[in-house]
Amino acid sequence: MHWTRREFAKLGGLGIAARFAPALAAQPAGRPTGYAIIGLGRIAAIFMSGIRNSSNSRVVALVSGHPDKALRIAADYRVPENSIYNYDNFDSIATNQQVDAVYVALPNSMHAEYTIRAAKAGKHVLCEKPMANSVAQCEQMIASCKSAGVKLMIGYRCQYDPTHLKAIDLIRSGAIGQLQAIESAFGFNIQPGEWRLDKKMAGGGPLVDVGIYSLNATRFLTGEEPGDFKAYTSTIDHDGRFTTVEENVSWTMKFPSGIMAACNTTYGGQMEGFYRVHGAKGWIEVSSAFVYEGLRLRAEYFAADGAAPTRLDEPNPAHIPYQFQTEAEHFSHCIQNGVEPKTPGEEGLRDMRYIAEIYKTAAAS
Amino acid sequence: MHWTRREFAKLGGLGIAARFAPALAAQPAGRPTGYAIIGLGRIAAIFMSGIRNSSNSRVVALVSGHPDKALRIAADYRVPENSIYNYDNFDSIATNQQVDAVYVALPNSMHAEYTIRAAKAGKHVLCEKPMANSVAQCEQMIASCKSAGVKLMIGYRCQYDPTHLKAIDLIRSGAIGQLQAIESAFGFNIQPGEWRLDKKMAGGGPLVDVGIYSLNATRFLTGEEPGDFKAYTSTIDHDGRFTTVEENVSWTMKFPSGIMAACNTTYGGQMEGFYRVHGAKGWIEVSSAFVYEGLRLRAEYFAADGAAPTRLDEPNPAHIPYQFQTEAEHFSHCIQNGVEPKTPGEEGLRDMRYIAEIYKTAAAS
Repeated sequence: MHWTRREFAKLGGLGIAARFAPALAAQPAGRPTGYAIIGLGRIAAIFMSGIRNSSNSRVVALVSGHPDKALRIAADYRVPENSIYNYDNFDSIATNQQVDAVYVALPNSMHAEYTIRAAKAGKHVLCEKPMANSVAQCEQMIASCKSAGVKLMIGYRCQYDPTHLKAIDLIRSGAIGQLQAIESAFGFNIQPGEWRLDKKMAGGGPLVDVGIYSLNATRFLTGEEPGDFKAYTSTIDHDGRFTTVEENVSWTMKFPSGIMAACNTTYGGQMEGFYRVHGAKGWIEVSSAFVYEGLRLRAEYFAADGAAPTRLDEPNPAHIPYQFQTEAEHFSHCIQNGVEPKTPGEEGLRDMRYIAEIYKTAAAS
Repeated sequence: MHWTRREFAKLGGLGIAARFAPALAAQPAGRPTGYAIIGLGRIAAIFMSGIRNSSNSRVVALVSGHPDKALRIAADYRVPENSIYNYDNFDSIATNQQVDAVYVALPNSMHAEYTIRAAKAGKHVLCEKPMANSVAQCEQMIASCKSAGVKLMIGYRCQYDPTHLKAIDLIRSGAIGQLQAIESAFGFNIQPGEWRLDKKMAGGGPLVDVGIYSLNATRFLTGEEPGDFKAYTSTIDHDGRFTTVEENVSWTMKFPSGIMAACNTTYGGQMEGFYRVHGAKGWIEVSSAFVYEGLRLRAEYFAADGAAPTRLDEPNPAHIPYQFQTEAEHFSHCIQNGVEPKTPGEEGLRDMRYIAEIYKTAAAS
């Protein structure tokens, strides 16, 4: 059953909507958007400090399986004790009128369940990437949020970062001419024991975790959707870490215009995130590209043959958690003003489809 | 019919060898190796200035279809007028005892013919990359040089450059740990009218001309031979330049150990040559990597977890034509001391086989 917000409003007049979506009422005007944080790991901590810096958002509830940890963080963020939930009583968040939205920062395998439960509780959802562990889960998440009339945004923080926005602006303005090719990579040498190494929890290896940054970047840089993929996976280190997920993925992809991208990702090596974009009249490099701070854009382009080049070298001076602040502010703005987020569920679904294709072509070889 | 130098020597004793290889006699000891330069274009000019700086080589003959140009260069290099050849009388170079070796700097389609003719004239051959236009031509060139008992080296100048040698040393020493992945690219936005755009003369597009640098680099960096390739080609600009060769190639390749590389090349964009090598304990970047000067190596690696990183930032201070000097000195050393060059014909043949595979997999998509 799919309900639009308008349909729910109509049902509300009939006294029916309340049974389906107890907290569906729009966020009261004039106050910051209240977030419940689901999963209190490292990224949630950064997100919360981003919210603390924001003008239009605040942390109002916590969801955790660790009461002590939750209490400690609650004190820090002045979250009342009765707004601390665990995974059993989470659904009762529906009646908490301070909670407008949830931020899902759980292991990937739990994204779908908690997005859907939050939607059923009438809360908007900001879900970390990768959106889920399968295309089917992504589709269910989108459908649930649509049914509940809540917004769904995926945490593609790079799309809210001024360095990447500058790269996109340069490309769209024609400064570097017709794009031809992109190289990109992102990875790290993973410690044993991380949940990321368990395919059931992670959905895949470095591709879904960090390779997704390169994949997503090639899409926002080109403004196109890739039409075809060719890929390899490999595992070099047989040290017990890579029993369910791959260690490396290398892939090339072709966009409809003919632009191509060549990318790597790894869980076995030191791989600072970067991209290089090559156009007829110039190039752009962002490196480091995908971490939380220290981004730097360099570019060189020629207005005309023989003209003096324009050279850019622009380190991004912002510090952690600026990306998360901007991301939260965008989602809160969307909630407060009834507009769609720039990176909705459909954006996460697309990447998940491409990731499935990359794994498929790698497996076929 | 294949003859080793030893077999020829034996035949010589029987008065037979002279009929097959008139100038086979070893270079007289104690003088620099004398080179005939075949093709007097841009790269030949740089090579000759490299020879001028060298300790063990000199320019002693020229082969050109442009007598005026040849005379001008001959004056500059003190080449006697009777050591200027054209493409018709080239074979008479066999009797020129000053000429020990030839440097083949012709369009790719002529590499095979002039390498084989030079070998038949008893001259050692240093041939520019790409070695030829086909695997079959490469095999013929190797066979001809073997038959004639002359050395054949391919002009892979990067393999003689201290920056690349430093990268190789770092990798072999284990500084950056087990390699996982490499990204590399090289290309440029080509002017219309170049012979490189004519497949008959060039043998292919940017892949054979500049992509070959990335291909060869992945091999000398890993010390392995790639086992498999997946690739795309594309042409974006329909402006008359790309009627017989492609504009872009993007490929990924897998090495036997599981190391992977993702590469791009273009004739349609600004693409400074570079590579990034990712190991378990660190990374190396060389950028710019494949031009004649201005190379720069950066690296960061950790001796152990938690140890302070070692950081390198080493611009190569050498200027054009240092790479060509080093390359010529190596070949002359090999000739003078009867040792095999580091980049023999077999090295060029391997790249040509891989290039053929890359084109094949791209065409199959």
